[in-house]
Amino acid sequence: MSAAVVESQDAQESGVREGAFGNARALSCRECGHEVELGPHYACSECFGPLEIAYDFPQVTREEIEAGPRNIWRYKALLPVPTDIETSPNTEPGFTRLLEAKNLAAELGLTRLWVKDDSTNPTNSFKDRVVACALSAARELGSKVFACPSTGNLANAVAAAGARAGMKTVVFIPSNLEQPKQVNSAVFTESLVAVEGNYDDVNKLASEIAGEEDGWAFVNVNVRPYYAEGSKTLGYEIAEQLGWRLPDQIVIPVASGSQLTKVHKAFQELITLGLVEDKPYKVYGAQAAGCSPVSVAYKAGVDAIRPVKPDTIAKSLAIGNPADGIYVLDVCRQTGGAVEDVTDDEVREAIVLLARTEGIFTETAGGTTVGVLKKLVESGQLDPELETVVINTGHGLKTLDAVAGSVGPVATIAPSYAAFAATGLA
Amino acid sequence: MSAAVVESQDAQESGVREGAFGNARALSCRECGHEVELGPHYACSECFGPLEIAYDFPQVTREEIEAGPRNIWRYKALLPVPTDIETSPNTEPGFTRLLEAKNLAAELGLTRLWVKDDSTNPTNSFKDRVVACALSAARELGSKVFACPSTGNLANAVAAAGARAGMKTVVFIPSNLEQPKQVNSAVFTESLVAVEGNYDDVNKLASEIAGEEDGWAFVNVNVRPYYAEGSKTLGYEIAEQLGWRLPDQIVIPVASGSQLTKVHKAFQELITLGLVEDKPYKVYGAQAAGCSPVSVAYKAGVDAIRPVKPDTIAKSLAIGNPADGIYVLDVCRQTGGAVEDVTDDEVREAIVLLARTEGIFTETAGGTTVGVLKKLVESGQLDPELETVVINTGHGLKTLDAVAGSVGPVATIAPSYAAFAATGLA
Repeated sequence: MSAAVVESQDAQESGVREGAFGNARALSCRECGHEVELGPHYACSECFGPLEIAYDFPQVTREEIEAGPRNIWRYKALLPVPTDIETSPNTEPGFTRLLEAKNLAAELGLTRLWVKDDSTNPTNSFKDRVVACALSAARELGSKVFACPSTGNLANAVAAAGARAGMKTVVFIPSNLEQPKQVNSAVFTESLVAVEGNYDDVNKLASEIAGEEDGWAFVNVNVRPYYAEGSKTLGYEIAEQLGWRLPDQIVIPVASGSQLTKVHKAFQELITLGLVEDKPYKVYGAQAAGCSPVSVAYKAGVDAIRPVKPDTIAKSLAIGNPADGIYVLDVCRQTGGAVEDVTDDEVREAIVLLARTEGIFTETAGGTTVGVLKKLVESGQLDPELETVVINTGHGLKTLDAVAGSVGPVATIAPSYAAFAATGLA
Repeated sequence: MSAAVVESQDAQESGVREGAFGNARALSCRECGHEVELGPHYACSECFGPLEIAYDFPQVTREEIEAGPRNIWRYKALLPVPTDIETSPNTEPGFTRLLEAKNLAAELGLTRLWVKDDSTNPTNSFKDRVVACALSAARELGSKVFACPSTGNLANAVAAAGARAGMKTVVFIPSNLEQPKQVNSAVFTESLVAVEGNYDDVNKLASEIAGEEDGWAFVNVNVRPYYAEGSKTLGYEIAEQLGWRLPDQIVIPVASGSQLTKVHKAFQELITLGLVEDKPYKVYGAQAAGCSPVSVAYKAGVDAIRPVKPDTIAKSLAIGNPADGIYVLDVCRQTGGAVEDVTDDEVREAIVLLARTEGIFTETAGGTTVGVLKKLVESGQLDPELETVVINTGHGLKTLDAVAGSVGPVATIAPSYAAFAATGLA
């Protein structure tokens, strides 16, 4: 009896329907390789390493993908989701713009540059991708509640996706969170819970609840392996939108580090499946100086990540103890890339630079990534002659305060032509 | 000599390149039918009526459209833009989500309902569509400056599109505009000008500058005929995304009224071109009670619009003297639809209703439209058995204050499982 058949029986015994996870075969430990059946598991029972989805991919063609819907489900054969995923209510994220950024390229001295713009996703960040995959897992696993601890983008994405799916959604946030971020989640759910404490306290409480309560799917805790796969779609889309080829260099923000490793995984899968030509590419990680444990380890040439207490305006990147930090180091070093960090002032400048050159208003995470791109070019770590992609993961409307002090009207005038003419703008 | 050849000669004499406006033939007066050559004109020289684009359409096929880019330029043959439009830097708006809204339909007692969601456009409103067409016209007419008077969404769209196109952009706003809206424009342009006065004062100043200065393209003033055509793409997309067919009923917000008339124009063009089957459909207009001159005229059964002084939270719909109001009355009456209005409280409730049922966070304009949909069903003006589309034109992040008082955390708790269990959410 093949492993797949055993798995299928296991799944049926656990009440999960046939094909619930598409071409996913098992959960595999990233550290020791031990495999367990697909279910609400996230840590290896042997070594406590993180579990990842392992697949038996069929032959997938470019034509099949191109004939699919204009959202992440065009790649459903490469995700842990059922073949009928697009018929279940979801926010239909993805297939966001890949814009050639000629003005920004000229400003930075690059030959060819693209911005992958995830700020136009349904709730305006890349989190809609991962949450859509987590929602599918929660549904297939029969979860009663769709939940997360979060300080912003994730809360928005979970609350919106849960509402649309008609699932009970509970979102946990620190009680001192800015009101706009609270509103942007509370509008979607009756069950926004404010927790007295910082994000670490909220996160700890979420793990506790996940352990105590049956049927709660915390997207970034007990269904994390499914959730994290959603980030691969960023890599697939970039390759498809470039005309089924890989860029030479890519700059990706690093919070937990999951997104960077998944984009690399996506590129490798496309090569293995023969969907793009095999070629070398360099992966670069971007952090804010006020929370740069991975960048610090990279520069020191060490493998271990030393946790830090975050102090940066790039709050959506402010994870002091990044779960996938060591894998980020691996990917960046193996591909010949690097990890770099920029100050909060450089983040603010980069937000305005991207807006003024390309008409894209990014949040502080995107400012960090564009700022790091600039620094990598100036320091000679990134080759300006090679084709480069930079990822914008979220929208500036969510972090307005970052630039509110530095941009504004050039003049305030009386409503007359004479007053206007005096400004020198005529 | 044919009219087209004469036009082509005129265009060449005025320095405009051949094919600058695609299949557009002339500017035609909506009132008297007088035609003038394509140029920076917006009012009829004979009767001062509004000018509209007239076309000589070639045969266009579904396949040609479907093979185009995933943005509004897939419809370039039906717009006043050149055939190479997608190669000029622009924000690449459009092809936004058309979501089937089963939860909202159930809530309202409708059989089949769709939401066309323009909140995921590049600057988060439908204005990116019209501005992209205005930008093309400004470029082809050799304009030096890309400009607009605005209180919000239009300012964002113009500033972003101008930045990406590398054009000098000047945006005029009332000086008392909320800071978030100022930031969301100022981040893109060095030339945000605050004007002491209300929107009417700003608008008047813009017309004055357009008259005094050569080479200024005010998107909603002197290149308005090109600009307004961009709204047709909403209609094209809805039909294509429904599988090349028209809905039975559609509910559209009314500010100037341009969008509603252009969606109707788009449906008519698709029928004429044989791209969809001819069938009856009803068009409904949505206004806020605090600025409802068209709804008032509709209900009174009169043709004339009496201007009002706006007083509503739906500021992006607050045009007291709507230029296309009389045409909205025509379309809604001819198709068997209606024009309705809702109070600010109903707007707020509808924003939360759409968010809680479908995971879409709309601004006050969308709240108005969904609120009107609800009222139309309840009052028996809209048939619940017929397939209905409702348009969401913008993003709730831009009008947070509308719901900030009515949604928030359900509980604030200590970071412990015991405290959580006491909430009753477990």
